[in-house]
Amino acid sequence: MKVLYSDQPIDYDGSQLKSHWIFQNFGILGDAAVAFCGACDVTIEKMVDLADVRDNKPIFSKSMLHVIAEFFDSDLTRTILTQRLLVSLAQQELIFRIQKPAVVRGGNDLYDDGAKLSVSIATASPVSTLVHFGINIVSEGTPVKTKGLADYKIDPADFARGLLESFCNEIQTVSEARAKVRAVD
Amino acid sequence: MKVLYSDQPIDYDGSQLKSHWIFQNFGILGDAAVAFCGACDVTIEKMVDLADVRDNKPIFSKSMLHVIAEFFDSDLTRTILTQRLLVSLAQQELIFRIQKPAVVRGGNDLYDDGAKLSVSIATASPVSTLVHFGINIVSEGTPVKTKGLADYKIDPADFARGLLESFCNEIQTVSEARAKVRAVD
Amino acid sequence: MKVLYSDQPIDYDGSQLKSHWIFQNFGILGDAAVAFCGACDVTIEKMVDLADVRDNKPIFSKSMLHVIAEFFDSDLTRTILTQRLLVSLAQQELIFRIQKPAVVRGGNDLYDDGAKLSVSIATASPVSTLVHFGINIVSEGTPVKTKGLADYKIDPADFARGLLESFCNEIQTVSEARAKVRAVD
Amino acid sequence: MKVLYSDQPIDYDGSQLKSHWIFQNFGILGDAAVAFCGACDVTIEKMVDLADVRDNKPIFSKSMLHVIAEFFDSDLTRTILTQRLLVSLAQQELIFRIQKPAVVRGGNDLYDDGAKLSVSIATASPVSTLVHFGINIVSEGTPVKTKGLADYKIDPADFARGLLESFCNEIQTVSEARAKVRAVD
Amino acid sequence: MKVLYSDQPIDYDGSQLKSHWIFQNFGILGDAAVAFCGACDVTIEKMVDLADVRDNKPIFSKSMLHVIAEFFDSDLTRTILTQRLLVSLAQQELIFRIQKPAVVRGGNDLYDDGAKLSVSIATASPVSTLVHFGINIVSEGTPVKTKGLADYKIDPADFARGLLESFCNEIQTVSEARAKVRAVD
Amino acid sequence: MKVLYSDQPIDYDGSQLKSHWIFQNFGILGDAAVAFCGACDVTIEKMVDLADVRDNKPIFSKSMLHVIAEFFDSDLTRTILTQRLLVSLAQQELIFRIQKPAVVRGGNDLYDDGAKLSVSIATASPVSTLVHFGINIVSEGTPVKTKGLADYKIDPADFARGLLESFCNEIQTVSEARAKVRAVD
Repeated sequence: MKVLYSDQPIDYDGSQLKSHWIFQNFGILGDAAVAFCGACDVTIEKMVDLADVRDNKPIFSKSMLHVIAEFFDSDLTRTILTQRLLVSLAQQELIFRIQKPAVVRGGNDLYDDGAKLSVSIATASPVSTLVHFGINIVSEGTPVKTKGLADYKIDPADFARGLLESFCNEIQTVSEARAKVRAVD
Repeated sequence: MKVLYSDQPIDYDGSQLKSHWIFQNFGILGDAAVAFCGACDVTIEKMVDLADVRDNKPIFSKSMLHVIAEFFDSDLTRTILTQRLLVSLAQQELIFRIQKPAVVRGGNDLYDDGAKLSVSIATASPVSTLVHFGINIVSEGTPVKTKGLADYKIDPADFARGLLESFCNEIQTVSEARAKVRAVD
Repeated sequence: MKVLYSDQPIDYDGSQLKSHWIFQNFGILGDAAVAFCGACDVTIEKMVDLADVRDNKPIFSKSMLHVIAEFFDSDLTRTILTQRLLVSLAQQELIFRIQKPAVVRGGNDLYDDGAKLSVSIATASPVSTLVHFGINIVSEGTPVKTKGLADYKIDPADFARGLLESFCNEIQTVSEARAKVRAVD
Repeated sequence: MKVLYSDQPIDYDGSQLKSHWIFQNFGILGDAAVAFCGACDVTIEKMVDLADVRDNKPIFSKSMLHVIAEFFDSDLTRTILTQRLLVSLAQQELIFRIQKPAVVRGGNDLYDDGAKLSVSIATASPVSTLVHFGINIVSEGTPVKTKGLADYKIDPADFARGLLESFCNEIQTVSEARAKVRAVD
Repeated sequence: MKVLYSDQPIDYDGSQLKSHWIFQNFGILGDAAVAFCGACDVTIEKMVDLADVRDNKPIFSKSMLHVIAEFFDSDLTRTILTQRLLVSLAQQELIFRIQKPAVVRGGNDLYDDGAKLSVSIATASPVSTLVHFGINIVSEGTPVKTKGLADYKIDPADFARGLLESFCNEIQTVSEARAKVRAVD
Repeated sequence: MKVLYSDQPIDYDGSQLKSHWIFQNFGILGDAAVAFCGACDVTIEKMVDLADVRDNKPIFSKSMLHVIAEFFDSDLTRTILTQRLLVSLAQQELIFRIQKPAVVRGGNDLYDDGAKLSVSIATASPVSTLVHFGINIVSEGTPVKTKGLADYKIDPADFARGLLESFCNEIQTVSEARAKVRAVD
């Protein structure tokens, strides 16, 4: 998997969760994850999580760090499992940077004492599977109580680079783990 | 998935990582995870991780908390991803019980400041895929520097029940996440 | 799999064979089958069976018992096999209620002495696979010779509940059968 | 799928449920189903159904009609679904020959008023999946109450040819059904 | 797989690369490959290869021999491998007809000394996977330097029949190879 | 995929076609292909092709160039398709080195005017799929009429390096082709 942190801000409105968006915007072909900063404003019509649509919970944040990942030749269940590992790596990165066991992962969400830190979704396109993970940078102006990287004085670019590196390493070692075990009866 | 913590100690020597071991010992049919305490002594011949075999690293611990999980109708890559989520949940459980950001996950291993806390493997049988996860209870007598639940004053049974519950919940919500997203272009 | 018989009539026009239709109309998340009564009027444009489209055979019935089932994390061939088991269970339910070996299954169709009892289709959405099975309640007004539950004096709701229960049981025991066999050489 | 009824009797002891047994005994390469008559005597060590092993229920019948089927490039769940369709076709064949709605299918077993008519198992080999279906010819000498084809005055060879033909047709039309539907949203 | 060479010319503009196009135009149900002659003019909007779209390389040829193949119950990676075997068979057919080792295959393209002989793409529809392979008949009027069957004095219909026969044979023997090997440790 | 040509001769007797043989002998983890020279002597008991076993055709050659490839997370049909591409690349390599259209591929065999050049098999282990491809270096002493690299004055090491490079490139571009196409309707 190739990874890239892009310094150029991009506002996320849901239309980035689309097959080949990474290839068409960054020229990266194949499994990849790219991170960038920008607002997050996904209206109900663009939302992919039908439970959120049903509950009428649009997603909004003034400034978020976003990760978009795309996997070809995977299936949606594999990609949901991979998404949760990404969120788990973000949790670990946060806990070690703030040096407090403050961040809890529940499914694909991160929380700090009731405040929501992140949003995430995994879905399928006709030729691939895709993940969006967004973690708040600033916490004001969100529809629910949130916290963001700025509240922890964490630099988004630095955080993104650490997260992408450990995510890339996770994917690589999963593949190696697949190849180094003998079967049992 | 059904989960069970068994109070009766069982020493783990690798022969428990076998298809239908859960069914034959606990009468549970289908995807399941069971936990129990006992020594851990896996000789080179029984080892499943061929990189460890190559490096001649047998596994030994006087007392461990073990989790054996079996998944039918999965594939090995899915099960390796699921295994890592199990290890990640154990990490979260530990961090929140000891109230310090002390435990790092690297692949399927947990460490505390250079001390190894756990061992884990995922593999395939002819009809299923299987996971073993073992976390030290006591840390003396191990071939490398380790730490265990006793060093953190964590009760193994209590820890096991918390871990099995969150693992069961993880599997359930992954399945729900699979079912609640619309596709994208 | 969750099953539900809904007393509220719904006319089937093909637009119900759609991903998440069950979730959006009944709030049931995940693999599920729901049954309801209503007319059946599928115009050529809405038809999914391209052999029927080619032969210009629209589907019409004044009153049918319908079953819609949706399976996530399955593939279309598996779902077609599952669909045929559903039709086979409807055949068995009919034969034992009318106490005559009158109903023949040919693929996914049921017949009684040349009269058509049912229609069925299985297809894929971008995130799931879906089945529609409709069995006539009344037999007048159909484009071909048909028979329906009313001709056998079978109560549709009662029939539906029996069928859903045995279908649910079928899915459950298939899963158990998967988990209880050892491999052979 | 190729099908064959062999007139030459073969006693079934479980060792026929093995990859390439059809190829090595009948020279048929690829997906196939063969039927033959013979005793059935499967000792506990040879049994594949671990629930039966646990309950110590060996299988015995003086004379049975056997079907062995092998599928390459399938998975075990698909093959279990296919197995149930085979059993359902045997049920239909029986009901129409005896002209009474006497035979019930529960999972992969056939019953007539409490008497067991058949045994069946589906499992995996390292390169294929396999089905055994056996229906009693004579009913005396069995460990539980049974009925057999002789009790219904059904000729086994004739029954076998009918069953193989309809099974072959089922597999063929499933494949056609896979190819003739358009997707839905 | 069924194969057909159709004498009736059809101009290829990309809209033929669509699920069930073969069924709807030739009445062939299931896995199939059909060949025909006609112009090739695929505008950027219709192109499926996003690398070519990015590089703005529309496809044009006055006269080509086209093969369209559709596979149900396959996946895209399998179909890409199958596509390359088709191109490899076309290479072999060419080399033996012109009796010179002139034609090189690079991925899914054929070249003769820098001149491009063919275009090809494999992709997925919601219910199948599809291949287009086009080999130039005449070489004038193309946007890049090309060569065609006419330059080699090869009759397109004759070439098509040979290619379809060897492709059909390839698919058949792959399936047989799947069924005749025992597993190893 | 990693590739390696090893100068050290190894005699092939079938026991090299085994999961993790590459890892255990060359330390390469994951999908890989290694080539080496050595005799080929596979007795009937070690043979994997059951059609050859049935026909009692053991494999023998005084000196061959061997390629062993192993793929994790693939399935046997994919690997058989990949194997045929490997054989097709060997054919192309031969034709261009000898500058005559002399070598024909039929399935996974290469022939020159009735003389057999190569043997090949693809099979599954419990955790991977494997390919053996062997091409004769010398042609005397073989049980059937053969030809070898020495007859064409081709250096085996040089040939192996060219073949491994183009095979590696094939695998890489298949993966890229998977990632660069949009879906069709």
